[in-house]
Amino acid sequence: MNGLPAPGALDGIRVVDLTRILAGPFCTQLLGDLGAEVIKVEGLDGDPVRGQGTLKDEFSGYFAQFNRNKRSIALNTREPRGRDVLHRLLVRADVLVENFRPGVLAKLGLDDETLARRYPQLVVCSINGFGSTGPYSDRPAFDFIAQAMSGFMAVNGPPDGEPMRAAPPISDLVAGLYGALGVCAALQARTRSGRGQRVETAMTNGLISLLGYLSAEYFTTGRAPERTGNHHPIVSPYGPFRAADGEIAIAPSNDTFVRRLLEALELGHILKDPRFADNAARVKNRVELTGILNLRLGEADADTWIRRLNAAGVPCGRVQGLDEVFNDPQVLAQEMVLTAEHGEHGPIRMTGFPLKFSATPAALHRTCPELGEDTGALLREHGFDDAVIDALHRDGIVGGLD
Amino acid sequence: MNGLPAPGALDGIRVVDLTRILAGPFCTQLLGDLGAEVIKVEGLDGDPVRGQGTLKDEFSGYFAQFNRNKRSIALNTREPRGRDVLHRLLVRADVLVENFRPGVLAKLGLDDETLARRYPQLVVCSINGFGSTGPYSDRPAFDFIAQAMSGFMAVNGPPDGEPMRAAPPISDLVAGLYGALGVCAALQARTRSGRGQRVETAMTNGLISLLGYLSAEYFTTGRAPERTGNHHPIVSPYGPFRAADGEIAIAPSNDTFVRRLLEALELGHILKDPRFADNAARVKNRVELTGILNLRLGEADADTWIRRLNAAGVPCGRVQGLDEVFNDPQVLAQEMVLTAEHGEHGPIRMTGFPLKFSATPAALHRTCPELGEDTGALLREHGFDDAVIDALHRDGIVGGLD
Repeated sequence: MNGLPAPGALDGIRVVDLTRILAGPFCTQLLGDLGAEVIKVEGLDGDPVRGQGTLKDEFSGYFAQFNRNKRSIALNTREPRGRDVLHRLLVRADVLVENFRPGVLAKLGLDDETLARRYPQLVVCSINGFGSTGPYSDRPAFDFIAQAMSGFMAVNGPPDGEPMRAAPPISDLVAGLYGALGVCAALQARTRSGRGQRVETAMTNGLISLLGYLSAEYFTTGRAPERTGNHHPIVSPYGPFRAADGEIAIAPSNDTFVRRLLEALELGHILKDPRFADNAARVKNRVELTGILNLRLGEADADTWIRRLNAAGVPCGRVQGLDEVFNDPQVLAQEMVLTAEHGEHGPIRMTGFPLKFSATPAALHRTCPELGEDTGALLREHGFDDAVIDALHRDGIVGGLD
Repeated sequence: MNGLPAPGALDGIRVVDLTRILAGPFCTQLLGDLGAEVIKVEGLDGDPVRGQGTLKDEFSGYFAQFNRNKRSIALNTREPRGRDVLHRLLVRADVLVENFRPGVLAKLGLDDETLARRYPQLVVCSINGFGSTGPYSDRPAFDFIAQAMSGFMAVNGPPDGEPMRAAPPISDLVAGLYGALGVCAALQARTRSGRGQRVETAMTNGLISLLGYLSAEYFTTGRAPERTGNHHPIVSPYGPFRAADGEIAIAPSNDTFVRRLLEALELGHILKDPRFADNAARVKNRVELTGILNLRLGEADADTWIRRLNAAGVPCGRVQGLDEVFNDPQVLAQEMVLTAEHGEHGPIRMTGFPLKFSATPAALHRTCPELGEDTGALLREHGFDDAVIDALHRDGIVGGLD
C-alpha cells in the first residue's frame, strides 16, 4: 500500500475505552479496526491481559490480538485529579465503552444522570455478564459461567458425554461484537437526534440469542434438544468422515446434495436400498451408512475427495487444526493473517478483519500500545500543559512518562 | 406499553433483503430489531426455512425466530418484470443484504458497477462462506464446513475425543452479526460521504476472528493448542463440579478467587498443602483437587452453593438446559423471552434482544410474515397501480395476493 490507508468507516469517531480483559477490549478493537480513534484508559498497572498467555520478552501475543488500533493512557481514576483527566477526555469523545460490573462506573462518578447532563453527545456502551437489572445483576461473571448458564454448553457435546464448552471465550467475544453493533446503531440514531444514549449488552444474553434453531425447537415442542455431537439430529449423512489421510466434514443438507455426494463417490446405487432411500431411513441407519462412506473415502486422500466433491457441488472441507488454518490458501488470500512490524518485538502475527469494505477498508493503523505509551501526547492534545503533566506524573496520577 | 413503541436506532433506514436460510436472515432481523424497515424478498416458493424445524399447523418456530420485524414480498426475480420490481424497491432503499454464493447477485443483473451507478446511496452487504476472492470463493458452504475449516472445531471437545462442532450454527450467526455491524458502520461512513459502498463478510472469517486467545498462542508459540474439554488448559480449579443435585460451573480466574472459593467451602486449609499451594501445583493435581471439591459440594444442593459462592464473589452458575434457561428469573427479567400474539398461530415465543438502548429500544414491531403477506402494500407504496399489480399477479411475477 502506498501512503496512508484510506479513512475507515468510523473515521472521526473518538472512543474512550475503560475496558479490560476481553469482551470490552474486543468491542473497542472492532471500533478501532473500523477507523475510530480509541483511547485505552488503563490503571497504572495496566490491563491484566498484558501479563497473560505465553510471553516473549514480556510481550503478550494475547494482548496484541485484542488491542491493536488503540492508544494507551495510564491513569489513576481513583484519584480526583485522575477523574478530572478522564472528564477532559470525555468532553471530546463520541463513545465511552466500559465492562465493569454494574454500578462500578457510577462509583467513578460517571452515573447515567451525570453522563447524560455533561456529555449529551456521548454514546455509553456497557458490557457485563448478566445485565444491569434483575436478580443476578451483581454477580461476577466469567465466560465459562455464561456458557454454562445460557444453555450454550447444554446443547454442545457428544450424546453420551457431558455438556461441552467452546474453548474460545465465545460469550465474551459475542458480547464484544454486540457492543460494537450497539455503538454503531446508537451513532446512527445520533445523526437524527443529535444526542447519545446508553446501550448495554450482556454475555449471557448474547449467547442466548445464538441458540437460534435450538431455542425455537424448545419453544415449539416444549422439549429441550438433546446433544448430538458432530452429527445432525435430523439429517444423514452429515458429519466428519475419514479419508485415507484425515477427516473431512461433509454436509449435504437435502436429497439433492445427498445424490450429488453419492454419485461423486460412485455409490449412487445405494439410494435404491431401502435402508438409505430417504433421509428418515438414513438417520435410522446412520452407523451403517457412515461405515459405507468411510470405506469408500478411505480409498483416496482428503485433498482428492475435497476437490471431487466440491466440483460436484457438495459442501465439504477438512477439519483443520490451527496450523492448517493459518497456512490455508483461502485464509491467506482473505488476509485473515496480518503480520505487523512492532518496533521492539519484531514481526508479530494476528488475525485479520472479517469485514471487507470497498470504500472504507478496515486497516491496521498501529499494533498494541505499551502501557501509557500515549499518556503525554493525549494529555497535550486535551489541553494539559507541560507543568501540569509533570505534576500529574510526579504525584502518581498518570503513568507511562518515564 | 402504551401506544406505539419508540423509534428504534435505525428508524428510517430501509433494507431490501434478498437473503434466505440463516446468516442473511439473522443479519436483517438484527437490523429490523434495531428499527430498520426490512423488506424480505422471497421467491414464489418462499424461504426454505418456512418448512424446516418442527411445524405446528404448517408454522415453523424456526422461521419465526429469524424473521420477525420484516415484511414479505413474493417475487420472481428470474423474470425481467420481477427484476424491474426489485429495482423499484432499490431506488428507495438504504441497504441491500444478500447471502448468495459470490457471482449470483451479478447474474440477477445487480453487479457492483450497476449497483454503484444506479444506487449510489446504497450500502450493499454480502454474506458468504469463504469470501468472494481466493481459491475457495466458488465453493458451497454450510455452517458445519465453516466450523471445520476455520479451526473452531479443532480446539473444542475433550482431550481424548474428536474435534467437536457447536450445535448452534455459530458460523452463520456470527457472520450475520458481523454483517449487521458492517451495515451500521457503512451507514456511518455514508453520513460523511453521502455514498454507500459494498461490505462483505464470510462465515469462515468470522469464526477465525473469534479464535482470539487460541490463535494468539499459536502465533506466539508455533504450536496448535490442544483440546482440553471443559477444563482450562492453564488454570485449576476451573470447570464443572458436582453438587448434590446437579452440576455447577465454577471459574476462579486467579489466586484471589481460588482463596475465596476454598474459604467459602471451608477448605481454605488445603492451600497449605504443597499439592494445591499454587496454580501450577493445582493444574498438576487437578484430578485430586476435583475429587476434594466434589466431595464437599456433594454435601448441599446447587442452589445453596451458588448462593454462598456468589456471596463470596466467586463466579459460578448452573450448567443449564434450555428448559432451565427459559425459566431462569434473570433471563426473564432481561426479557430474553418474548411472547407475541400471532393472528393465526396463537401466542408464539422467541428469544429477545441482547442490545438494550435507553432512548431507542429494540422492539418487536411484528411477528414473521406469511409468504407474500405484504406484496400488495409494498407494490402500492412503490408506485405500482392496481392494474399493473393485477397483471404481475396474473403472470406469476408476484405472489401472496390470493
